Amino acid sequence: MVEELVAAVGAAHVVAGDDPSVADLCADEALGVPAGKPAWVVWPADRDEVAAVVRAARAAGMSVTARGAGTGLSGAATPDDGAVLVSFARMDRVLEVDPVEAVAVVQPGVPLTVLDAAAREHGLTYPVHPGEQSASLGGTVATNAGGMRAVRYGVTRSHVLGLEAVLADGSVVRTGGRLAKISSGYDLTQLLVGSEGTLALVTEVIVRLHPHLPARRTVLAPFPSADAVTAAVGRVLAAGLAPTICEYLDGPTMRAVCAAADLSLGLPEDLVDADHLLVELAGRRQERVDEDAEELADVLGTLGAADVFDLPAGSARRLVEAREGAFWAVKAAGADEIVDLVVPRSAMAAFLARARAAGDAHGARVLGCGHAGDGNVHLAVFQPDPERLGATLHDVFAAGIALGGAVSGEHGVGRAKAHALETFGDPAALEAVRRIRAALDPEGVLNPGCAVR
Amino acid sequence: MVEELVAAVGAAHVVAGDDPSVADLCADEALGVPAGKPAWVVWPADRDEVAAVVRAARAAGMSVTARGAGTGLSGAATPDDGAVLVSFARMDRVLEVDPVEAVAVVQPGVPLTVLDAAAREHGLTYPVHPGEQSASLGGTVATNAGGMRAVRYGVTRSHVLGLEAVLADGSVVRTGGRLAKISSGYDLTQLLVGSEGTLALVTEVIVRLHPHLPARRTVLAPFPSADAVTAAVGRVLAAGLAPTICEYLDGPTMRAVCAAADLSLGLPEDLVDADHLLVELAGRRQERVDEDAEELADVLGTLGAADVFDLPAGSARRLVEAREGAFWAVKAAGADEIVDLVVPRSAMAAFLARARAAGDAHGARVLGCGHAGDGNVHLAVFQPDPERLGATLHDVFAAGIALGGAVSGEHGVGRAKAHALETFGDPAALEAVRRIRAALDPEGVLNPGCAVR
Ligand SMILES: Cc1cc2nc3c(=O)[nH]c(=O)nc-3n(C[C@H](O)[C@H](O)[C@H](O)COP(=O)(O)OP(=O)(O)OC[C@H]3O[C@@H](n4cnc5c(N)ncnc54)[C@H](O)[C@@H]3O)c2cc1C
Ligand SMILES: Cc1cc2nc3c(=O)[nH]c(=O)nc-3n(C[C@H](O)[C@H](O)[C@H](O)COP(=O)(O)OP(=O)(O)OC[C@H]3O[C@@H](n4cnc5c(N)ncnc54)[C@H](O)[C@@H]3O)c2cc1C
Repeated sequence: MVEELVAAVGAAHVVAGDDPSVADLCADEALGVPAGKPAWVVWPADRDEVAAVVRAARAAGMSVTARGAGTGLSGAATPDDGAVLVSFARMDRVLEVDPVEAVAVVQPGVPLTVLDAAAREHGLTYPVHPGEQSASLGGTVATNAGGMRAVRYGVTRSHVLGLEAVLADGSVVRTGGRLAKISSGYDLTQLLVGSEGTLALVTEVIVRLHPHLPARRTVLAPFPSADAVTAAVGRVLAAGLAPTICEYLDGPTMRAVCAAADLSLGLPEDLVDADHLLVELAGRRQERVDEDAEELADVLGTLGAADVFDLPAGSARRLVEAREGAFWAVKAAGADEIVDLVVPRSAMAAFLARARAAGDAHGARVLGCGHAGDGNVHLAVFQPDPERLGATLHDVFAAGIALGGAVSGEHGVGRAKAHALETFGDPAALEAVRRIRAALDPEGVLNPGCAVR
Repeated sequence: MVEELVAAVGAAHVVAGDDPSVADLCADEALGVPAGKPAWVVWPADRDEVAAVVRAARAAGMSVTARGAGTGLSGAATPDDGAVLVSFARMDRVLEVDPVEAVAVVQPGVPLTVLDAAAREHGLTYPVHPGEQSASLGGTVATNAGGMRAVRYGVTRSHVLGLEAVLADGSVVRTGGRLAKISSGYDLTQLLVGSEGTLALVTEVIVRLHPHLPARRTVLAPFPSADAVTAAVGRVLAAGLAPTICEYLDGPTMRAVCAAADLSLGLPEDLVDADHLLVELAGRRQERVDEDAEELADVLGTLGAADVFDLPAGSARRLVEAREGAFWAVKAAGADEIVDLVVPRSAMAAFLARARAAGDAHGARVLGCGHAGDGNVHLAVFQPDPERLGATLHDVFAAGIALGGAVSGEHGVGRAKAHALETFGDPAALEAVRRIRAALDPEGVLNPGCAVR
């Protein structure tokens, strides 16, 4: 086997899976998924090398797991034991930024920060901002990453116009193009987005860029309850204020992220423990954003905000970054699992209440924050006992599903949530997904332990 | 067979396919696709009846074609001979408009006009506006319909949050939900959108609504060339003006649609034959829209517009409606075929030039208009001789593909463009599509003559 891999990518780019130098590559950031034991780790340089690796693995009866930056939170990039782990770290070039078309063509190993910086040189931005900006294009495509700005710009899916990808049989598909829309047969682009490395390895991505919005205002509004936050979110969106950020943080999460970022917002002590709504407005012209910020403050005030704090640009940026790093804060605090269920936006408060009740029933502490504009609730669950943790999670998922939700809004299924999806997903839909997977990968080459099995 | 169908939907809702009363249902609006000869036409009332029809057809070895409003332009709703034609005309209820969540839940037979009117009662709008607003939700989901406002709001795909649908084996899947985003396994919603009745019959649709924008300004700018229009489109979008309409009309199309609508815009005669750009801006506040309209006029003037006409609201509306009806105008003028290739936005002028050259080479007249902001060019081709028409179309498709385009931007593949897709589509992608189709419909029950075969 190693000969074929060396032939595919060169000896310098094949390392045995038990080599200590690759230990860090054998897991992602999911809290509950143990590291895998890949047979080999390889670093292809281009599409043809990726195809050669897939063909070699398939011929040898081995599986293949793709790895981007390894920042995923669902264990989707954690290799199955004995797999060939394919790192895209060498395929890290922004091939083109086309300012006229407002698209970029990138290799999958490009970090989001690098793409956004390249776009900014042309007055454009790539607005997909999951909390961890070192995430790769390939990884974000494979998980359909969201992040704070999805409330305005949509998730990764809304930005991917075309793909080049290697299928399980080593063939190369090209989907979409530099095309604003397309209706020419099934949309394979959309099928591959969010497929977590189980249908294809992405070797090139065409994404849509947006004009960068220079004017900005950020407000923080502490509310007496999550119910009040939820109601406010609906009104802010219905007013057409089109916020670029619309985040919920409960009191403990606010404390944790401010502490982790060493950030003091100067809030009165009794308000820190409130339920917080963080809203950013952005636009082309400062005077319009300022006018909208006043309208926003009025709306929030009317809906029961204890106060509406206009954050100076520096504090706003640091609070947003601290919120993006909430995962690190709760991990450091000893969280045992995190989940990111999505529910109808207006059901957020109800879901939080039921999730906390589930925690109480099983002696688990449950902290919450989330992309409130999307109904995407991120919970940190503290319960070291595996059985009681499992019972808590089961009840939390059941509560979200009962409210019309789904097991993951943006982190994906991976290995961490595969059981939850099997338990709570629509059975006929799961069966259709299995059939599609078997049709494109009958031998189970691509990431077999991940997602719907 | 008829017993099973009667058992499924009731005797009053089954009619033999050769009954004169159903003659109008045996074709859509595609110019080049002859009417089909279905064995039966049925009108189910709900999901269970749809499932019973599919099971009955499958058991009898018959195929099933879904029909919405029959306004499609690709022959996708034209039944295969001997098929069971399923009309969704009785499933025409808006089940819910939820203004807090900004979603609507509708049955597939609901016309776009009805949904939009229901949304407007809550200050919301459903912004998918193909030229023919009698189109049904089910039909627009199945073709991934676009229309003028896609330049701002995106196509149907961007608005569908969830589906209920009957698969080829009669099982019922539920996908998505009232969820702004989801990352919980392959996105079946997105796979079914645009699948032209070949993977499932849609029985319920959850769509996203948007705040209605009351303030509006429309300008018409005649340019000396399609090149100049194309360049202007890029700049208007890059400026972040976010037009709700950004349409191209060549001189002959402008004449034809104005004549058909009995509309006089009072343009100087020499400007009527120019290449026109029609732009609508919309927003929450009139003063901002007015300010943007001035910026727009500056941009267009700088880029070579012969003039920039600020259209009064009445003329603007009538011109937009006339443009939406361009198909009827060119059909009345005797067009033999229409195509709606999509190319990268900045390649529109180059594509038009090559398409006209193809027409010249084969003695065909080629008129053009299109959704310029999306690079979606609609061509009317006049050439009665089938062989020369075929040669023209081949060269037109080849020209679009060479520029990085695809065979259809919004009308779909249907029966009219199936050959073009087979000729010009990516072979590996087509093979993947075939496998997916076979996995979900191994017996070829659903619309077998349509799309990728
Ligand atoms: C602090 C923190 C905050 C976060 N906040 C958010 C957030 O707000 N929103 C959000 O959506 N996510 C968030 N995440 C999760 C993570 O950033 C995203 O899931 C991201 O998309 C992962 O990208 P990656 O490059 O690290 O992918 P990896 O973790 O390396 O892989 C993720 C998946 O992509 C597959 N993959 C990678 N490259 C390819 C390829 N070329 N072809 C096919 N499949 C491939 C892998 O097999 C795996 O299935 C956060 C993570 C952290 C650590
Ligand atoms: C004057 C004119 C202008 C137009 N302008 C545009 C435009 O600007 N943009 C645009 O995109 N289109 C345009 N169209 C095309 C047409 O309006 C769209 O294709 C529309 O989506 C068709 O909807 P329908 O209900 O008429 O579908 P039909 O024509 O009845 O069917 C279309 C497809 O949908 C399938 N289908 C219908 N119902 C269901 C269901 N419940 N489940 C599964 N499959 C189903 C059919 O089988 C078929 O494959 C125009 C048409 C006309 C006549």
